[in-house]
Amino acid sequence: MTKEGMDSFEDLRLLFEPRSLALVGATNNLAKWGCIVLGNILKGGYRGEIYPVHPTERTVLGLRAYRRIADIGRPVELAVIVTPAHTVPGILKECIKANVQMAIVITSGFSETGTEGTKLEREVVALARQGSMRIVGPNSMGIYSAPATLLALMAPLEVRPGEVALISQSGNLGVQILGWGSKLGIGFHAFVSTGNEGDLSCEEYLRHFSGDTGTRVILLYIEGIDRGELFFETLRKTTTRKPVVILKGGRTPTGSQAARSHTGALAGDRAIIASALRQAGAVMVRETEELLDLAVALLRAPFPRGNKVAVLTRGGGWGVLAADMCEESGLYLPPLTETTRGKLDRILPPYWSHGNPVDMAATLNLEAYSDCLCLLARDPSFDGVIALGAGTGPMQRILHDPAWLSLLRQPEEETLRIAEGNEHMEKRIFSQIGELMEETGKPILPVSIEFEEYGIKLFDGRPIPIFTTPERAVRTMAYLVQASRSLRRDK
Amino acid sequence: MTKEGMDSFEDLRLLFEPRSLALVGATNNLAKWGCIVLGNILKGGYRGEIYPVHPTERTVLGLRAYRRIADIGRPVELAVIVTPAHTVPGILKECIKANVQMAIVITSGFSETGTEGTKLEREVVALARQGSMRIVGPNSMGIYSAPATLLALMAPLEVRPGEVALISQSGNLGVQILGWGSKLGIGFHAFVSTGNEGDLSCEEYLRHFSGDTGTRVILLYIEGIDRGELFFETLRKTTTRKPVVILKGGRTPTGSQAARSHTGALAGDRAIIASALRQAGAVMVRETEELLDLAVALLRAPFPRGNKVAVLTRGGGWGVLAADMCEESGLYLPPLTETTRGKLDRILPPYWSHGNPVDMAATLNLEAYSDCLCLLARDPSFDGVIALGAGTGPMQRILHDPAWLSLLRQPEEETLRIAEGNEHMEKRIFSQIGELMEETGKPILPVSIEFEEYGIKLFDGRPIPIFTTPERAVRTMAYLVQASRSLRRDK
Repeated sequence: MTKEGMDSFEDLRLLFEPRSLALVGATNNLAKWGCIVLGNILKGGYRGEIYPVHPTERTVLGLRAYRRIADIGRPVELAVIVTPAHTVPGILKECIKANVQMAIVITSGFSETGTEGTKLEREVVALARQGSMRIVGPNSMGIYSAPATLLALMAPLEVRPGEVALISQSGNLGVQILGWGSKLGIGFHAFVSTGNEGDLSCEEYLRHFSGDTGTRVILLYIEGIDRGELFFETLRKTTTRKPVVILKGGRTPTGSQAARSHTGALAGDRAIIASALRQAGAVMVRETEELLDLAVALLRAPFPRGNKVAVLTRGGGWGVLAADMCEESGLYLPPLTETTRGKLDRILPPYWSHGNPVDMAATLNLEAYSDCLCLLARDPSFDGVIALGAGTGPMQRILHDPAWLSLLRQPEEETLRIAEGNEHMEKRIFSQIGELMEETGKPILPVSIEFEEYGIKLFDGRPIPIFTTPERAVRTMAYLVQASRSLRRDK
Repeated sequence: MTKEGMDSFEDLRLLFEPRSLALVGATNNLAKWGCIVLGNILKGGYRGEIYPVHPTERTVLGLRAYRRIADIGRPVELAVIVTPAHTVPGILKECIKANVQMAIVITSGFSETGTEGTKLEREVVALARQGSMRIVGPNSMGIYSAPATLLALMAPLEVRPGEVALISQSGNLGVQILGWGSKLGIGFHAFVSTGNEGDLSCEEYLRHFSGDTGTRVILLYIEGIDRGELFFETLRKTTTRKPVVILKGGRTPTGSQAARSHTGALAGDRAIIASALRQAGAVMVRETEELLDLAVALLRAPFPRGNKVAVLTRGGGWGVLAADMCEESGLYLPPLTETTRGKLDRILPPYWSHGNPVDMAATLNLEAYSDCLCLLARDPSFDGVIALGAGTGPMQRILHDPAWLSLLRQPEEETLRIAEGNEHMEKRIFSQIGELMEETGKPILPVSIEFEEYGIKLFDGRPIPIFTTPERAVRTMAYLVQASRSLRRDK
């Protein structure tokens, strides 16, 4: 079976949906990865068969342990290997004998450590190819797969299942994005720490997720690309089907020197690589937080048809900063039409900004905010809306603060009615944003100043993407426009 | 008394440390600002005398109310005015009669609303000048002052007292930075929402905080500057004494058009203004989060002597991204000396990066992390250290997760000892960072992936500045270098 001849999905089925796995190097010693990885698999809720392999232990973390793979005596679809580097060739031979066709080699000490390690890695890869085995790594931090509820990882994490596939050439970075993203409400379909890519490469994972119906968004952290032409071809095809977001390490001489010592990535053609990736339709973000913000939006907002944006704000300064950031990131704020201006005149106090950004000029009236939002979202002049100052406002903070309430002593009924109405509206605005996105097919990105509301949150059962600052919402909108252009370009 | 003749600190003493205040427009109706502002003052713990003024109410929020200022019959040092615009001239006349010399005019509907409002504002300012009164605003969202524990603000906030002064030409933005910063552990000495600056100007507040011994760091949000020469002169003098950080709204044509409708700031000389501010020694940040991150560092890290930085990382990818960001923001990563390399060889496994960034290559050994940190901080090649992957690690997460612990069933004593030692070290590293900053006089900026650890946190009684991403820590270090250069330049 040659590499080219293999059907990509079938090929990686054993990796992402194994019905059974052996953990080679399993142990009860918490100071070793063999304990942590097995614990993560168990705690993660993997539903297939698990066979711990250890030369002497009878049970590991409560499971019956086996001295060697040959002793298991039942089919093993995936081997996860954490034993020292010099033991790996022997273990692979056992795997091949036992007809195990897929392995994740978590063990480090291969090509990332110098000449000796490189020799050992070549040996391991040659062995695998002879035996028709495929290998993740070596020096991988492991994988996560939602369909198999499989958390075969070095890090103890709570991963939220969903539709994002994350491919990372840095294990540490990938794992942290996985954990952080999950906290933000981003659901992951799969994650792979590619390690040294001795066998399975970035390009093959990308090809797999490109065809995988469970994956809607692909995130990549890359430092270097082997077999560049194949990778770019796969990327070009993928980005017309689903958005691919790339965070590239090694953009500068200093960074690429660090990358050389990390993954051995070549520095030579930094600028060329970045522009080629962009031309192939990838959205190139510059920071970890941008990657996460964009994933939040890609999962929960429609694609904008163009770059024309309306900004709604309850305070002038935020509108000014948002407008600056729009221009700096290639978004266009069209002026308001006479019709829209006339309608807004009827909603807002006379001293509103009369332009875009629509500055409501500090008012507690949330009905007006809601009316403006509908008007701007439905206005054909705009492809999307940035909604600043949505979310928790002063009323909610007052009504939930006993110290404040005690000041009011005997609040008048009228007062409470207004205050509670406002509180209701504060929450209502988020679900309305969800409804408006469905109705108009346009992205509406709300910004709430409350940390607690950052990420994807449910309102009336609707998942709403919420951002912490106007700057980040605007930048995300600009990236959404890029992703959208990639999807709509000639294929 | 002419403006120029007044001593700045004496002048604003009545604003930031009033012994008594009258709230004109106080009411029990929670839907009105007169209720919210008074509630905030009461809840904020103001210790001076408070006189609510309302034409008919007998008591407001439990305090005896007065029909008019004249009825108070005791000295009033500050008037806070929230009544409709057309009533303001009359109220100011009453203030002058009652010898009130300072007022915050929260009321809007002045020059920000057009010709009529501008006329009214001129009238109000002329009245004040005749009566030797000074005015904040109109159209201000109020002030906060730590020495007076005075929260005379439109927004219900918990403000942390401290050493930062915040001057904002946008009330909304200023208030949100105040609340957000407080949550991050940034302590504020004072805040002023400058409003329309009909009388007191940005320059005068800056001059005040420049001389104010309680203020160690000054943050400014500005859109436009009147009397530019005076402002730049004050700024130039201030930045040799204490850092001034500026977030400038209206950097682009789109942004400055929005600013024109917001504060009436002139757009003409955008580029000139930005470069002049920088030349005057201000650190120009581009985003709200950068402003907050930098405040965190300025409060809790020493000033770097230069731009030479060491990066310590537990995972290669983060080191690569940090190195990229260092180069992109003007920091320099010097190579390691032979001596340092030799010492690190004795601490780290053989396959560490052997360069800067110092990549420890995934190890659970936190003693080694701690040793590397000491070595790099004390190395004269470096002016500062970025410490990635400090803080909560896998062990802490495992040991605090009952589901994980139950997997271990009967953990061996040895296992627990190692695990607990690691947990102790995770916390210890932060206090060690504090000790090293004291010892070496160099900034060490740790990055923790846990949201909960973002901001200024106490470890063994030491406040430590902690960042959420490598990118943000690096950018903050670059800004610190700029602030430091300003302080050390020829005066």
